[in-house]
Amino acid sequence: MAWDILIRNIKGLVQTRDQATGPLKGEAMATLPVLENAYLIIHNGLIEDYGSMDTLPEAASAITVIDATGRFVFPSFVDSHTHLIFATTREEEFVMKIKGATYEEIAAKGGGILNSAKKLQAVSEEELFERAMVRVHDIVRTGTGAVEIKSGYGLTVKDELKMLRVARRIGKESPLTVKTTFLGAHAVPKDTTQEQYIERIIKEMIPAVAAEKLADYIDVFCERGFFSQAEAERIVEEGKAHGMKPRIHANQLHRSGGVQAGVNTGALSVDHLENIGDEEIEYLKSSSVMPTALPGAAFFLGLPFPPARKIIGAGLPLAIASDYNPGSAPGGNMPLMLSLACIKMKMTPEEAINAATINTAVALELEKTHGSITKGKTANVFITKPMSSVAFMPYSFGGNCVEAIVLNGRVIAD
Amino acid sequence: MAWDILIRNIKGLVQTRDQATGPLKGEAMATLPVLENAYLIIHNGLIEDYGSMDTLPEAASAITVIDATGRFVFPSFVDSHTHLIFATTREEEFVMKIKGATYEEIAAKGGGILNSAKKLQAVSEEELFERAMVRVHDIVRTGTGAVEIKSGYGLTVKDELKMLRVARRIGKESPLTVKTTFLGAHAVPKDTTQEQYIERIIKEMIPAVAAEKLADYIDVFCERGFFSQAEAERIVEEGKAHGMKPRIHANQLHRSGGVQAGVNTGALSVDHLENIGDEEIEYLKSSSVMPTALPGAAFFLGLPFPPARKIIGAGLPLAIASDYNPGSAPGGNMPLMLSLACIKMKMTPEEAINAATINTAVALELEKTHGSITKGKTANVFITKPMSSVAFMPYSFGGNCVEAIVLNGRVIAD
Repeated sequence: MAWDILIRNIKGLVQTRDQATGPLKGEAMATLPVLENAYLIIHNGLIEDYGSMDTLPEAASAITVIDATGRFVFPSFVDSHTHLIFATTREEEFVMKIKGATYEEIAAKGGGILNSAKKLQAVSEEELFERAMVRVHDIVRTGTGAVEIKSGYGLTVKDELKMLRVARRIGKESPLTVKTTFLGAHAVPKDTTQEQYIERIIKEMIPAVAAEKLADYIDVFCERGFFSQAEAERIVEEGKAHGMKPRIHANQLHRSGGVQAGVNTGALSVDHLENIGDEEIEYLKSSSVMPTALPGAAFFLGLPFPPARKIIGAGLPLAIASDYNPGSAPGGNMPLMLSLACIKMKMTPEEAINAATINTAVALELEKTHGSITKGKTANVFITKPMSSVAFMPYSFGGNCVEAIVLNGRVIAD
Repeated sequence: MAWDILIRNIKGLVQTRDQATGPLKGEAMATLPVLENAYLIIHNGLIEDYGSMDTLPEAASAITVIDATGRFVFPSFVDSHTHLIFATTREEEFVMKIKGATYEEIAAKGGGILNSAKKLQAVSEEELFERAMVRVHDIVRTGTGAVEIKSGYGLTVKDELKMLRVARRIGKESPLTVKTTFLGAHAVPKDTTQEQYIERIIKEMIPAVAAEKLADYIDVFCERGFFSQAEAERIVEEGKAHGMKPRIHANQLHRSGGVQAGVNTGALSVDHLENIGDEEIEYLKSSSVMPTALPGAAFFLGLPFPPARKIIGAGLPLAIASDYNPGSAPGGNMPLMLSLACIKMKMTPEEAINAATINTAVALELEKTHGSITKGKTANVFITKPMSSVAFMPYSFGGNCVEAIVLNGRVIAD
């Protein structure tokens, strides 16, 4: 019989796992299976089979045959933390920061999250979708196959629902696998008090989001000046009661209690972690929460990078995501996130690739379908340009290694 | 009459200058002329004319008409410092460094410049050309239109000539404008003493390079453990006597006297500058040497970035180049260099763009033909994807803004 796609002569088939696995932790992160001189068969949108070229059945034929001589095939990246739906970019704030403006000065001039909210509120759902799709196209081109998308620039019931509808539509109309997160608790709008806004999140937003089944997850920006640990726990518990599992923005700017909030509420992940110490690492050890580093934001803001070696050294897992957003991480290029993880966080290429495939898949509850080359998983893979080794990808920073893309079993055209 | 190319409805035509200008210094670097709603006419390989759309002659027609609505047009980047001819990448050393190996340990295992030399010596000229052309293609795709290429991985007469012949051939057979630099004094081979090698450079290499007219410039790696200030001055003076103007690798790792060597010998540029103080800045003020920052190397090696604000604040010019090489800067993505210049060196987008166009053109003596949108200059430009502003390019780090490319008046196909 003829399969849909046969990729032949693959120099290295990366992340081959016989079975779907759970998170990779500690020393296990250092091992990345790479099958040399391999083939990959894709059929009906799934990974049908793979193996060494010398075991390829002679009768194997396919509608599309791709020769990958000199090239590696990776499972598509799973980017488990983005805010890629927004109305406009914010490079004017970037320039203000270069010129020395403080966060407070930028906020006083209408910058920050509230700036994004004001602009998003003025844009129609259709327009918002079209603008986000430009970014979707860009991240597909750099190897992402599944993505989490948060709300949080709406900050009104109407506009949070608008964002989440756009996120769901991206999941339907783009080739990306999309998980959605309600992040009403991103910042407090100017016209309300903290307590009024929390009441609105709990009494109005969460029920409305749940009624339309718009969000898989609930998130809180747990940071000094935004939402406290106690507030975060209160909000996500309400989300849980409405079927949304928690994930927490934790410890980006301060020892905010975000990690503790994540562990206490059984969150899927705690993300950022620029400011964690031994206490938070100990706390994480007692949980199955996925610690997630967002190196693009640390790079762009000039923050210390999360202590990856300490986290992995403690036997914990670690995930890497982009944080793609218009304020603090205006890019979703996952190969560049791997470069930052290796260059700045001293992760090995193998650890970084595991962190951005299997571990992010676990963080999005996609480990049964994404994040590895495993029979029966969704056929989300990319073929690199000719490369000397897997390590070439993070090493050649800023170079796009992704040459061809297959998502859901279909070749993605330019 | 019909022109070759007409680009219409340009949102912003960047770096429009009525006349070729010299280097931009100090406060002048902050100003970047951008003509809004513009057209650009290209004919016979040159920039024929440009202006506001409302002044476009009604009769203007062209063989190729490009609509650039929502897009910016930039003069192609001039990358004034690369080592892009090499035999193989060196990601194995990158991984050793991540795991904690010191520079000395890597050198002891055969790493570093001598590693590149050993590999290059084993590769034929034809093969070396083909491998370099892959990188040429990559940098064309990210907006580079002119490039300096150094030797320095040969370290024998034969192999230095081989590298420089490949560099000249790239200038003839690729669309890039190429300037070549003889960098025999890159490192001392194992089989010779320092003094023996310097004698070989002076008595054998420089005359041989000059006899074939293979190098426009001469360079020395003036760094502790490599070549001293006095040695650098001696070597480049010999180069000058053979028609090669100097440029110096200065102050990357130490206060090496490299800046002083550059000023004393009338070099075109001193490049790196991670380790300079007030003394070097004062010294530069008395010269027309172009200080050149290579932010990709500082980023990749985790060095402090050159003090751009101090340099510009002293009224000096500043140039930005990639340093593309297999050891310390394995990438030639100039938009990412702009991002690093803005994010890490606190240059404004306007300063960074001036630094990577006009000022690098001056550093390569190409200011009459490259580095700005000026009538009569070589038609080397690129069209961006739709962008909100010029600042979007450095802000959206790791995103490729370059959508279409014209070099020497011809559209470059994929």
